[in-house]
Formats: sequence, structure tokens, C-alpha cells
Amino acid sequence: MLERSSSFETLVAELNKLPGIGRKSAERLAYHIIKMPKDEALRLSSSIKAVKEKIFFCSLCFNLTEHDPCSICSDPSRKKDRILVVEDPMDIAAFERSGVYHGIYHALQGRIIPLKGITPDRLRIKELLDRIEKGGIREVILATNPDVEGEATALYISKQLASFDLEVTRIGLGVPMGGSLEFSDSVTLGKALEGRKKFS
Amino acid sequence: MLERSSSFETLVAELNKLPGIGRKSAERLAYHIIKMPKDEALRLSSSIKAVKEKIFFCSLCFNLTEHDPCSICSDPSRKKDRILVVEDPMDIAAFERSGVYHGIYHALQGRIIPLKGITPDRLRIKELLDRIEKGGIREVILATNPDVEGEATALYISKQLASFDLEVTRIGLGVPMGGSLEFSDSVTLGKALEGRKKFS
Repeated sequence: MLERSSSFETLVAELNKLPGIGRKSAERLAYHIIKMPKDEALRLSSSIKAVKEKIFFCSLCFNLTEHDPCSICSDPSRKKDRILVVEDPMDIAAFERSGVYHGIYHALQGRIIPLKGITPDRLRIKELLDRIEKGGIREVILATNPDVEGEATALYISKQLASFDLEVTRIGLGVPMGGSLEFSDSVTLGKALEGRKKFS
Repeated sequence: MLERSSSFETLVAELNKLPGIGRKSAERLAYHIIKMPKDEALRLSSSIKAVKEKIFFCSLCFNLTEHDPCSICSDPSRKKDRILVVEDPMDIAAFERSGVYHGIYHALQGRIIPLKGITPDRLRIKELLDRIEKGGIREVILATNPDVEGEATALYISKQLASFDLEVTRIGLGVPMGGSLEFSDSVTLGKALEGRKKFS
């Protein structure tokens, strides 16, 4: 096709770095991009640049946003007395799609995995405690993923929260163990919220 | 996660247009891009722009190139008396990787599929005939994909070439029917070239 040092090879190498895109898929995508109408390819190129320039993390809840604070934190209709704690902004998106939750969020930006060196201080746990210390929070719902690391992370946070005068709950009913929050359907997420129980 | 009109949603929508990338994969990729180091994401963005600005089709063989004529057409060590006719520049890449062919190529940029409105005049068949009319070609090797449309395309071209004084061959041995040239291994492609037979 082309000499190895070409812009085609550069694009293949860059696409190949993305998760789930092997060498062969990267070649197919690059070839597709070459055949695309030019304006469409330039839209793709500039939308990648735009997210890097415009998107950052909300200084309150660490959700992805283009404005600080994010649209959820600054929405006057959201109930500000309950915080739903998730691992990741993708999980906030899943809850928002389900439409069953009307409070505010806190994205930890990960989960505790000591073997990978992800200790509690690498997550946004301190920032969660700071928010709670400011007062006004009556309930913290722990919605980390229902697997070993997620449970451990929830347990760790529940211990940190023990001294505060608030209800700490864990989403329950409906979310299958070993599954992933991001791929749960709205009904399951709704059931999980309804069936939340006190963290013991 | 984010308001629906955000740059994140734009990127997801653009990624979603690529082949084999569904809504969910597009979200994962977009999120990955947000978490990437900025310089890496900008390299991806600019490499997409670069292929659209730098890459076009060779005016002789319709391979992808950054220089006209392409590196194969302008290589003095290639045998200019034989043309290997393929559907697609990706197939040229497959033959080049196998290293078994030292002649020049002609990419039809597709195959005849009347039901989809792809008639012979939509392909680069006229340009192939023009190249042959200029003389110097002793053999045309038809290497369209070994399936129904590919066979039909090869048959059509062989009829167009009947009036010329040259050998028209079809790659044979080794390429399994119903398969795809692009994913064939080098040995199979080598066997196919060795075992080429006269188009009857």
C-alpha cells in the first residue's frame, strides 16, 4: 500500500493505541478515514482536539464537564442532601440515563486496588469527606461496582464516614454480583436504588 | 456524565460513524481519549487530519500514496510488464507484505455489484485498459477476491482484455473460495501467485 513512514502508518499506529483496537482494525479504520468525505474526517479530528481542550473534571463531584461546577452540581432542582458515590464518570452517565436518581454525585475516579498500587489516597475520597464536612448531606449512597474491589472500596469509605451523622447506604437489589454498573439497564439500576440498605 | 450537546457527545457521535464501532464502544473510546495524555490525543487528532491532507490515489495504479506516481509505480526495480489487478489498495498491502510479487499493480477501487449499482464504469477498469493500450504489458494477473462478485469482476475484465495480445491469468491455488485476500497469509498468497492459470 504505502511506504512504512507515511502518514497512513502514523495514523494506524495512533489508532492501534486505543483500547480494543488491534493492528488489523486500526488499518481498516485508517483506510475508512481515507475514503471518508474530507469534512467528516476533519470533524472527527477536531472533535478529538475539542474534548482535550474543553473537557475537564468538575471541582465538586469530579464528573466530566465543560463548565465548573458541572451541570448536575449547578442544577437547583437536584437534591443536594444526598450524594451517590461512583467509581467513574461513566457510571454517572448510566444513572443519568436511568432517570431514577435526583440527587448529586461524587466520582472517585477509580477503585482501591492495592496490588496495582491504587491506594485510597489516589482516589477522590478526601474530596468526598471535605464535601460532607461542609454539612448539608443526609445520605451517602455507595454505588461502586458490585465486585471484589468495588465492595472493598465501599467498605473503606463507609468506615471513613462512620463518625459523621448521616446515613450510609449501599445500592443493593438488582445489581448482579460480578457485573458492571456501566452496562446495567435502567430497570436494574432503579431496583438497585429502591432496594438500597443501611451499610453495616 | 455530560450535557448531551457537549463536545463529548460530538466525539461519541463521530466515533460511532466508524465501521465496527457501536455507541458503547464509541463512549469507551471517547472516555479513553479524555483520560489520555493531551499530546497523545493531539497526535491522534492531527494524524487524522494529515492523512486527509497528504494521502491521495496514485494516478497510474490507484494505490494510496503521498507522492504521484506512488512508490511502487516509480520504483525502477519493479517489473513493468506485468500488472496485478486487485479490488482495493488494502489488497496491494497484503501482496507487498508477502513479498512474492515484483511487478506493478492496478487497484480497481471496488468490484462489480450490479444490485448495489456498482457497474463497471464506476471502477477503474477504463484506466486499466488505457495503461494496457500504451503497450509494454505482457501479463495481467487478475487478483480480485475469490468470491462471487470478485469472480464476476475478473470475468468481466478478462473479456475486455480478450482483444489485446497479452496473457490474462487468474490467481488460483491456495486462495480459498469465499475468503478474503486481505486476511490471507503470505504463504497462501505466494501459492496463489505460483499456481496462476490462464483465464479461459
